[in-house]
Amino acid sequence: MPGPTVKFQPDARTVAAEAGQTLLDAAFAAGIPLNSVCGGRGICGRCLVRIVAGEAEVDEGGRVPGGQEILACLSRVTGDVTVDVSELSRIEGEQILTGAERNGPFMPIPAVPVPSDPLVFALPLQLPQPTIHDCLSDLNRLTRELRRVGGIQDLVVPLDVLRTAPQVLRDANWEITAVLARTNGAHELVALRPGAAASGLYGVAVDVGTTTIVVHLVDLASGATLGAAAGLNRQAAYGDDVISRIIHAGEPGGLEGLRNAALGVTNVLIGGLAQAHGVARDDIVGAVLAGNTTMLHLFLGLPPAEIRREPYIPVISMPPAYRAGEVGLRVNHHATVAWMPGVSSYVGGDITADVLAAGMDGTEELSMLIDVGTNGETVIGNRDFLVCCACSAGPAFEGGGITSGMRAALGAVQRVKLAPDGGLSWSTIGGGRPRGICGSGMVDLLAELLLAGYLDRAGRLRPDAPVVREGPDGLEAVVVPAGESATGRDIVLTSADIENLLRTKAAVYAGGALLTRRLGIDIRDIQRIYVAGGFGTYLDIQKAILIGLLPDVPVERVTFIGNGSVTGAKMALLSHETWRRAAEVAQKMTYRELSTDMGFMEEYVSATFLPHTDCARFPRACAQLGRQD
Amino acid sequence: MPGPTVKFQPDARTVAAEAGQTLLDAAFAAGIPLNSVCGGRGICGRCLVRIVAGEAEVDEGGRVPGGQEILACLSRVTGDVTVDVSELSRIEGEQILTGAERNGPFMPIPAVPVPSDPLVFALPLQLPQPTIHDCLSDLNRLTRELRRVGGIQDLVVPLDVLRTAPQVLRDANWEITAVLARTNGAHELVALRPGAAASGLYGVAVDVGTTTIVVHLVDLASGATLGAAAGLNRQAAYGDDVISRIIHAGEPGGLEGLRNAALGVTNVLIGGLAQAHGVARDDIVGAVLAGNTTMLHLFLGLPPAEIRREPYIPVISMPPAYRAGEVGLRVNHHATVAWMPGVSSYVGGDITADVLAAGMDGTEELSMLIDVGTNGETVIGNRDFLVCCACSAGPAFEGGGITSGMRAALGAVQRVKLAPDGGLSWSTIGGGRPRGICGSGMVDLLAELLLAGYLDRAGRLRPDAPVVREGPDGLEAVVVPAGESATGRDIVLTSADIENLLRTKAAVYAGGALLTRRLGIDIRDIQRIYVAGGFGTYLDIQKAILIGLLPDVPVERVTFIGNGSVTGAKMALLSHETWRRAAEVAQKMTYRELSTDMGFMEEYVSATFLPHTDCARFPRACAQLGRQD
Repeated sequence: MPGPTVKFQPDARTVAAEAGQTLLDAAFAAGIPLNSVCGGRGICGRCLVRIVAGEAEVDEGGRVPGGQEILACLSRVTGDVTVDVSELSRIEGEQILTGAERNGPFMPIPAVPVPSDPLVFALPLQLPQPTIHDCLSDLNRLTRELRRVGGIQDLVVPLDVLRTAPQVLRDANWEITAVLARTNGAHELVALRPGAAASGLYGVAVDVGTTTIVVHLVDLASGATLGAAAGLNRQAAYGDDVISRIIHAGEPGGLEGLRNAALGVTNVLIGGLAQAHGVARDDIVGAVLAGNTTMLHLFLGLPPAEIRREPYIPVISMPPAYRAGEVGLRVNHHATVAWMPGVSSYVGGDITADVLAAGMDGTEELSMLIDVGTNGETVIGNRDFLVCCACSAGPAFEGGGITSGMRAALGAVQRVKLAPDGGLSWSTIGGGRPRGICGSGMVDLLAELLLAGYLDRAGRLRPDAPVVREGPDGLEAVVVPAGESATGRDIVLTSADIENLLRTKAAVYAGGALLTRRLGIDIRDIQRIYVAGGFGTYLDIQKAILIGLLPDVPVERVTFIGNGSVTGAKMALLSHETWRRAAEVAQKMTYRELSTDMGFMEEYVSATFLPHTDCARFPRACAQLGRQD
Repeated sequence: MPGPTVKFQPDARTVAAEAGQTLLDAAFAAGIPLNSVCGGRGICGRCLVRIVAGEAEVDEGGRVPGGQEILACLSRVTGDVTVDVSELSRIEGEQILTGAERNGPFMPIPAVPVPSDPLVFALPLQLPQPTIHDCLSDLNRLTRELRRVGGIQDLVVPLDVLRTAPQVLRDANWEITAVLARTNGAHELVALRPGAAASGLYGVAVDVGTTTIVVHLVDLASGATLGAAAGLNRQAAYGDDVISRIIHAGEPGGLEGLRNAALGVTNVLIGGLAQAHGVARDDIVGAVLAGNTTMLHLFLGLPPAEIRREPYIPVISMPPAYRAGEVGLRVNHHATVAWMPGVSSYVGGDITADVLAAGMDGTEELSMLIDVGTNGETVIGNRDFLVCCACSAGPAFEGGGITSGMRAALGAVQRVKLAPDGGLSWSTIGGGRPRGICGSGMVDLLAELLLAGYLDRAGRLRPDAPVVREGPDGLEAVVVPAGESATGRDIVLTSADIENLLRTKAAVYAGGALLTRRLGIDIRDIQRIYVAGGFGTYLDIQKAILIGLLPDVPVERVTFIGNGSVTGAKMALLSHETWRRAAEVAQKMTYRELSTDMGFMEEYVSATFLPHTDCARFPRACAQLGRQD
């Protein structure tokens, strides 16, 4: 007997499902990834669907009281069912950080010019036709020409590609294009194509974040970014942070489940982009991925257990390139899949990518990079040295664990201002009705509440403030009333949310502060601060300083580089020279373990104030807030 | 509903089968390869079985008249059935040519000493335990030590092997053995094993012949050959010679069928050897295969069509090494599978292997190598030059197309002598009752019949000779009467068999003769002749000259090297230096195309006489036969 099927409307897409499977998983399998922050744990309430025909078994807490909607993650397939997915529940159409939105939607590289020598490139060849006097084998004929034309001495040819060679060569009358990947110190033949055409090759740059996975589809010949897409890293179902995922990986089937979760999202995102831009998966011949070291391990199916055990030893930090077929990436089977090299268990290739995107390894000026993600990392250095540290910050600025939090996507409140009437005014990404608040909106919100005196420096809401009310779990600020929101529910910031944000910003700040202290550097000596992270399409630096997320330096010294991870990965994809530089950066970068440093807790506790307990460190911010104390 | 099952007795082995599948295929799937010369076409009558319970559908010609036995290749599964397989129908227990049987059962290398540096080797390592101050990743810790201890700079690590690393390293308390393959200009990590042990690694040398596949299982540390096994190349079902197989490869599914046929036999042979010698398949970490260029293509699934089309261009002649998992060889998934490098479409790696086994590339003396297989190849040269040619000889000396022909195996008549009473006396391999005649037996038989005057120089039997009778298809010589044979049937040599043998020996001789003519060399200048081929455990050189298979030189100049293909492959498996030399030999060897040389037909026709039409070329042989004319 065939299993039940689930039909999704209005897409009219049907998939076979297993009894007991959640509608969230079924939607995912159907290529309709639903919104979800909690990873399918029935917490975030983002994956709302409506049953149109048939039935599903809805677990406790899975029904929206008084409404027709149910949570897809808490609803299980029992038989054939048809489900309607509202626009709001979809991941599609999200606007994604590319690191340079303020300068145009997809400007790929913000700071550093990149030479055009992609990791995977096309070499058109006109082979001499074989004769009885020139009777080299097909492979030797090809290698002879590659040596002559491209100086290539170190060709690796996968068996599958070799199997296609005789027909391609003869059908094309010996005028062909070799698609070559330059990795692992050799040239690998990814494909042989008929005709001489250097175009039509594509690559993907992927930021595998703990919370979000971002994919950019790139034309390898022109360097143009065709499109970008993002989705929740579905590993979130197994925990918000890397530690809980490492623990889960140790359970039976855990590692494989985590691997498939991240791979699945990535493949769906790549598939969607390829379809949207009319690119065949087979023409995607290279991928550069960036992520923290745990993400790297989980993506490649490498046991991550030792990452969290002293002395914190990863299986790899600078992985060789593998073939897509081996990794499970659904692009050309022989596409090269490279990971940005990392430094240690807690400073991964995403930070190397940030450094490349910021260009801090090439300048004389002393700069600092702060990556605000689920892990917070800080790098200090210049072309002579690079030192880094990491701390667990939590996913708050990416929308995780925040009542109305969401990723930087269409409908996210990204700017907030105190209105003349004492209320709050806001604007959203894309300009539509608000669905939630993203990172930059949270920074603005905290700063505005603080400046207005609705919030005190300890992070307590004032009960008498105009936007503050008593909510189900204590005081909360109403940012957008239900009537104006896209969800029909109030968009709020609760006291618990504020505590969460303070813990996150304190951890980020404490990491950087302790690193400068241990290096004996005064924050004032730092000439430039780069900020990376998924805040939104913009970040108000002044407000980020005001809440103590960033050190109190002159605003003009701070550059927001957005998603430096995907930008750096893309730079490496488009330039072998940059790829080579990435290895140098990773090798040069020294990791300082701060988690065992007794000073960290001290720094952290002082930083859970707004902006900080020590106003000497935040003279400008404290002056601005002066009247409040 | 589950499909029917076939149970084999007395092994009591049961396999699931499909309705319509032949019992021959089912036996093969059960790991009980049956004897078969015709490859399952109902011609050779070697695959006899008896039904014990249940039924099978027997095609026309599949029943032994008056007996209970049926041909497995013409009997199809219809439902559950139990089948008895007699000892005679089994391939198991065959005695196989190793190239040096006369000097002991498994002396691996006949002529040339080989340095002990196997292609795959074990490197025991004691890694320093990681600390917070020496916190390299597992991979970097390993590569650092390999660089320090082994000077290895170019390590390639398959993802699967990397996945096992953290556990192996820690369970073994950092005392491990790296199993490394040295191919394709780099070192590949085949496996990581706990503990320091350089032993327990095995390899296989395989001769993939057009008619027969021979496997030797070798201990890589000691170089000892543990055992050998051979089976019919089941591609024979698609034709006796390479040309008919190339044609079949062009049909839908043809190439895959041919690939699986050769792979299947090889895997069964390896499996049997591994089991017999208590070796785990996973401990077989390297394989070197040798075969003609068509066999190479079919084994790797490479389209062979151009091999038979002018200008005869193979896809590859010097293939890179691939991993066993990619090739389909059922040994360690990451084992290195290398093929002996070949020269052209018609001179393959088996000939390179012969040259290495004979050592002719290292000496000053001018020598000639003659490989008598389904293809006949001749090489002339010394350490300064090597020239070769090839011709299609047919499988007669391997038992193909000969009424009572069989491979050199237990029960094969390998020596024949005229008895004082005018009859024939014989001896078999293993000494048991005769089952058929192998190559060396055929050489003896032709020579003895000729010397006795029972056969004239044109290859006609004398009707009045004591052992000659009128058979169903004309005159035939009875070698072993039914009462003395193991099969209960007469072992005979028919007039058609004799014609077949004359065509084969003529082609072999003509190739060599024409090559010397075109090189302007007198056969008398050749100081040594090496003969390779599947004749049996011995070859009577004098008789081979008498029938004109070999040129008429003093007997002491001729050395029979047996299966030089498997010997050369084994030498390369055991010595990276020899492997390197193989590439040099293949590159140095010049191929002369004789098939388009008008002189070939002339040489061939003159050589279809016994020994030859031109007695000036065979003075000694003709003198011996003098009385006959």
